[in-house]
Amino acid sequence: MKALQYRTIGAAPELETVPDPEPGPGQVLLKVSAAGVCHSDIAVMSWPEKDFPYPLPLTLGHEGAGTIEAMGEGVTGFAVGDSVAVYGPWGCGACPPCAGGRENYCLRAGELGIFPPGLGSPGAIAEYMIVDDARHLEPLNGLDPVQTVPLTDAGLTPYHAIKRSLPKLVPGSTAVVIGTGGLGHVAIQLLRALCPAQVIAMDVTEDKLELARSVGAHEAVLSDAAAADKVRELTGGLGATAVFDFVGAAPTTATAAGCVAMEGDITIVGIAGASVPVGFGLLPFEVSVTAPYWGSRGELHEVLDLARAGAVEVHVETFPMEDAPLAYERLHSGKINGRAVILPNG
Amino acid sequence: MKALQYRTIGAAPELETVPDPEPGPGQVLLKVSAAGVCHSDIAVMSWPEKDFPYPLPLTLGHEGAGTIEAMGEGVTGFAVGDSVAVYGPWGCGACPPCAGGRENYCLRAGELGIFPPGLGSPGAIAEYMIVDDARHLEPLNGLDPVQTVPLTDAGLTPYHAIKRSLPKLVPGSTAVVIGTGGLGHVAIQLLRALCPAQVIAMDVTEDKLELARSVGAHEAVLSDAAAADKVRELTGGLGATAVFDFVGAAPTTATAAGCVAMEGDITIVGIAGASVPVGFGLLPFEVSVTAPYWGSRGELHEVLDLARAGAVEVHVETFPMEDAPLAYERLHSGKINGRAVILPNG
Amino acid sequence: MKALQYRTIGAAPELETVPDPEPGPGQVLLKVSAAGVCHSDIAVMSWPEKDFPYPLPLTLGHEGAGTIEAMGEGVTGFAVGDSVAVYGPWGCGACPPCAGGRENYCLRAGELGIFPPGLGSPGAIAEYMIVDDARHLEPLNGLDPVQTVPLTDAGLTPYHAIKRSLPKLVPGSTAVVIGTGGLGHVAIQLLRALCPAQVIAMDVTEDKLELARSVGAHEAVLSDAAAADKVRELTGGLGATAVFDFVGAAPTTATAAGCVAMEGDITIVGIAGASVPVGFGLLPFEVSVTAPYWGSRGELHEVLDLARAGAVEVHVETFPMEDAPLAYERLHSGKINGRAVILPNG
Amino acid sequence: MKALQYRTIGAAPELETVPDPEPGPGQVLLKVSAAGVCHSDIAVMSWPEKDFPYPLPLTLGHEGAGTIEAMGEGVTGFAVGDSVAVYGPWGCGACPPCAGGRENYCLRAGELGIFPPGLGSPGAIAEYMIVDDARHLEPLNGLDPVQTVPLTDAGLTPYHAIKRSLPKLVPGSTAVVIGTGGLGHVAIQLLRALCPAQVIAMDVTEDKLELARSVGAHEAVLSDAAAADKVRELTGGLGATAVFDFVGAAPTTATAAGCVAMEGDITIVGIAGASVPVGFGLLPFEVSVTAPYWGSRGELHEVLDLARAGAVEVHVETFPMEDAPLAYERLHSGKINGRAVILPNG
Repeated sequence: MKALQYRTIGAAPELETVPDPEPGPGQVLLKVSAAGVCHSDIAVMSWPEKDFPYPLPLTLGHEGAGTIEAMGEGVTGFAVGDSVAVYGPWGCGACPPCAGGRENYCLRAGELGIFPPGLGSPGAIAEYMIVDDARHLEPLNGLDPVQTVPLTDAGLTPYHAIKRSLPKLVPGSTAVVIGTGGLGHVAIQLLRALCPAQVIAMDVTEDKLELARSVGAHEAVLSDAAAADKVRELTGGLGATAVFDFVGAAPTTATAAGCVAMEGDITIVGIAGASVPVGFGLLPFEVSVTAPYWGSRGELHEVLDLARAGAVEVHVETFPMEDAPLAYERLHSGKINGRAVILPNG
Repeated sequence: MKALQYRTIGAAPELETVPDPEPGPGQVLLKVSAAGVCHSDIAVMSWPEKDFPYPLPLTLGHEGAGTIEAMGEGVTGFAVGDSVAVYGPWGCGACPPCAGGRENYCLRAGELGIFPPGLGSPGAIAEYMIVDDARHLEPLNGLDPVQTVPLTDAGLTPYHAIKRSLPKLVPGSTAVVIGTGGLGHVAIQLLRALCPAQVIAMDVTEDKLELARSVGAHEAVLSDAAAADKVRELTGGLGATAVFDFVGAAPTTATAAGCVAMEGDITIVGIAGASVPVGFGLLPFEVSVTAPYWGSRGELHEVLDLARAGAVEVHVETFPMEDAPLAYERLHSGKINGRAVILPNG
Repeated sequence: MKALQYRTIGAAPELETVPDPEPGPGQVLLKVSAAGVCHSDIAVMSWPEKDFPYPLPLTLGHEGAGTIEAMGEGVTGFAVGDSVAVYGPWGCGACPPCAGGRENYCLRAGELGIFPPGLGSPGAIAEYMIVDDARHLEPLNGLDPVQTVPLTDAGLTPYHAIKRSLPKLVPGSTAVVIGTGGLGHVAIQLLRALCPAQVIAMDVTEDKLELARSVGAHEAVLSDAAAADKVRELTGGLGATAVFDFVGAAPTTATAAGCVAMEGDITIVGIAGASVPVGFGLLPFEVSVTAPYWGSRGELHEVLDLARAGAVEVHVETFPMEDAPLAYERLHSGKINGRAVILPNG
Repeated sequence: MKALQYRTIGAAPELETVPDPEPGPGQVLLKVSAAGVCHSDIAVMSWPEKDFPYPLPLTLGHEGAGTIEAMGEGVTGFAVGDSVAVYGPWGCGACPPCAGGRENYCLRAGELGIFPPGLGSPGAIAEYMIVDDARHLEPLNGLDPVQTVPLTDAGLTPYHAIKRSLPKLVPGSTAVVIGTGGLGHVAIQLLRALCPAQVIAMDVTEDKLELARSVGAHEAVLSDAAAADKVRELTGGLGATAVFDFVGAAPTTATAAGCVAMEGDITIVGIAGASVPVGFGLLPFEVSVTAPYWGSRGELHEVLDLARAGAVEVHVETFPMEDAPLAYERLHSGKINGRAVILPNG
């Protein structure tokens, strides 16, 4: 079959022909309908050889959806032909976080050599992929795999981030979304569907702000040195109850720290490397700051239910398999609008 | 191998020789070290043929612990020889409650024909048992299987019931435990370990009250018509913040309704068939009443951690395999102190 | 000044001229802009003399809004002329529930002789009213007092009821509202604003179902013997995650019990006297049933913030002060659409 | 009456004779039984004139307990002679945080010129003090005022900090307490009473570790560069579920960051000025870091209930009023063991 592989440190990913995989006991073979292309892959491919944690070649793609082609021995609860999305942050399934469905925080993945597809295990940008256990499948039940596949990361990650702040996002509260790209423009829709908070979006160009408004932001302001003051103005001086930073660079973490309200939350999702220092007197009282990673199995189910209700939609640009390298090129040079999705089988 | 089976509706369970089981893909074969005997088995064996939901013969035992004898293909994260306890309320592992580890509330178990061991699937009162998936194993890590096996139900069930009330069990609050038998005497210990509430135990004889005090109850009162007033007296008139009824008969549910505080919880665990009517004006404002079942995978892990810390101990009476029928007889006639445990391998 | 008073057990309320009240230390005198008329007043006026808990004559009206006319000594944080709504369930302000703003559950109100306005203390259907403490005032900040005054009970009560279930009302969940009258038609709007649940309304006539749809119900079904099955059908067999019964009569509590999902909530707000029996095997596992009363100070603030955002609107029918007795007559005979509001100064 | 006042920036506090205060409407006059001396007073008195936020002279003492000597007009629910403790972080009582009893986070205190006693308002180190509202009184109900008075800050502050982490402090979890002085040695006791977590204390001398063990720490380790590794060792490599840093200096915040577990909490209570930077990749996934301030009214009630149950005890060193300046001297030079308490009335 064809697969898009990262083969040489520093090189671009290459389209290869590799042996068709076969499912072992407990495993499921998917014929891939759609595979998402994510910025974090580009970050991964920028790492130097000494830090690179995965074996090469690596078939890319941690967002996958497909139909069940075959099931290994012992698989139950699914049938050949079922259309499913793949829960990506695979864990051991048995340790305490895994027992709560938070496999993104598995205590034993490292020790047991468990890696997510596309981030260590063979990924979804291939005609077929192996899913290690049926519990990592989420039935699509009528959802379109192409439109839905980005939700497995670009939907699940902001959903998880937002969920911790929901008890605070009561009427009269305000949520700030910094960065309205792949994850951020989904976050705006999720916030509107999940809570009554005022949603303020921030980004660096007027057309991105226009996108933010079109997907539901009540306000959209330029992400510059005046942004924090603007939030205070839009909140009667109180500041934002929750700030979600999908960039994580020094200017955005400073804005987050500058606009958050007492007892508020700052959640840093962006991986640009900056931080918010927390200590007595540095932020309003009892602001809680955290940096989460991906989301839980139950949360993916809920994200798909939201999509089924029509409450969240990702702008998708599709590429046939032979253009998969091109999709990465275009993403790298900032030319993708919304989310690039590869169609490995057509 | 030898197994204790319920074979004929209405008859006593019988010790049989049956074929040794072999683990299929994803399954685990345990050599059983200890298996608990539970009142609910006696209830099950009292059902008439038309209501009996399981195929016969049925190997009994829904509390099991053992060592891994063999693992089917595809099992990872465990090794032959590991000493483990079995999580009993098996579910599909994939539906939303299962994805949160609450397999006791699986949405698809009925449809998929999934049954707990001893309650539909072959149970633990046998020399060997099959566990359907490694996620249903909890490592003992040094805990004694005989002392620990009752915790998989008689510990997990009250733990789950208590956990929902913990946010209310603040300093100055009061928890009432009605029925100090198998589950109740564990509940008292759990409450003492988990929260600062005053614990009031209730039962019908003075020696049971003495046991309650010896395992940590601050107060122990006879469970009679005056019991609710006694609780009001011991709480400065406020009543109990949480009432756990491990009997569930008309007199105990009436006591529960009579002694609970405004905004308090009543949790009915006992299966004796009575109920608390909830409606405006019938109970203090916003009392919440529920009847849960067993517990979650994460909760079993926590119960075993409590046991490891020495915070909970079950009084255990052991029986060799050949006396397994006797254990049921003695339980039926009320002659078991604490929990009967069968040792199928000696 | 003029005041509407209940003066004789069993008689209709009468318009009287009474002395103008003056605020003592810590109290606030309001010039009443609007006062809501509530079904529960009619229930109160139906009680026999021996059960009647308040001194007569009683000035009616537990929903009030007005402008501050004068402030007693020691009042701070407000100014004469401020437009405010009144939080009705007055408590001592110091006991543990009051310290959390849950004065509806004050532990000492009875002992200290504290009564809500219109339910023991002189109420809002008068030209002026005394509010016992400034903490019971909620600034309107631009909200219209006439449109807003019903929210102090008909908005706050369902808001409080819904709030306990919000953590369960995730994407894919379903909320059922039984009874779409004064409180129910607000509940539908609150649910739509607060969570992504599917909302199913129930009532007994088609025009009431039409109203339910017009305020946001996704589905509206006749409240009859088939209603529970209809909910199961609309939820893929799972049942409703949360049921809010604003009637509380035997047929509606039976429907609630019949349509609720495993781990779901039933909240009985209606005071028609029926109940749901809770015990092992009577309801799906771990359904939690409760009957709350009114709401907290913080919740009233949140309800008004929702109104300010345009998310909730009460259909209001206004009456001048001289027609206040008529408003009760019409309410009693079922002729009020939405909520009747008296304008004592207007 | 005599009062200890801070009169001149940079000078030591002085014992003065000032007019006896009289309670206005809604206020309460206390005859002070006991007043705590706190490190934060020393910090306040070190501030330069330009930063000093309070009017001078300032009567010190933000921990107070006494008997009610007189009540202003309009005060209800208390009686002359009642023995009470004072809730210190006064707020407006009406804004949303105040409506939830979190007056420590009042939104309007600044605007309205509201200050805690001893921190802007006349404090407790005086023969008499004015409490601005009866809601700030907590009945002692038999507790000794001298033993109890430090709990209003040195008990309430760690209690509030711990309370946010309680849902995570399940069996098998670990809490680390850095700094075992005034607040820290209370925190250890609170943790033992409130949850089943393993408690590891850290401080810089062996005798402080001995104190930590004597009040309940399971483990006590030197707070040095190896401390974080020691915690990992004592937690099977997982790290601490919750870290409470009562120092807040660079070495302790580094230890906190170094020993915390995935999904854990770091709470910085100490005011020594250091911080923990939070960003993607800097800490284990989803560690939440915050710096709270004091606690809520409901929490003070709970702390006193814990004291009443004998679960928490402060080591107290008493001083007669004339030695109040000496108490501050000794505290400043590190010679106070536990908490210094002034007895203004002998």
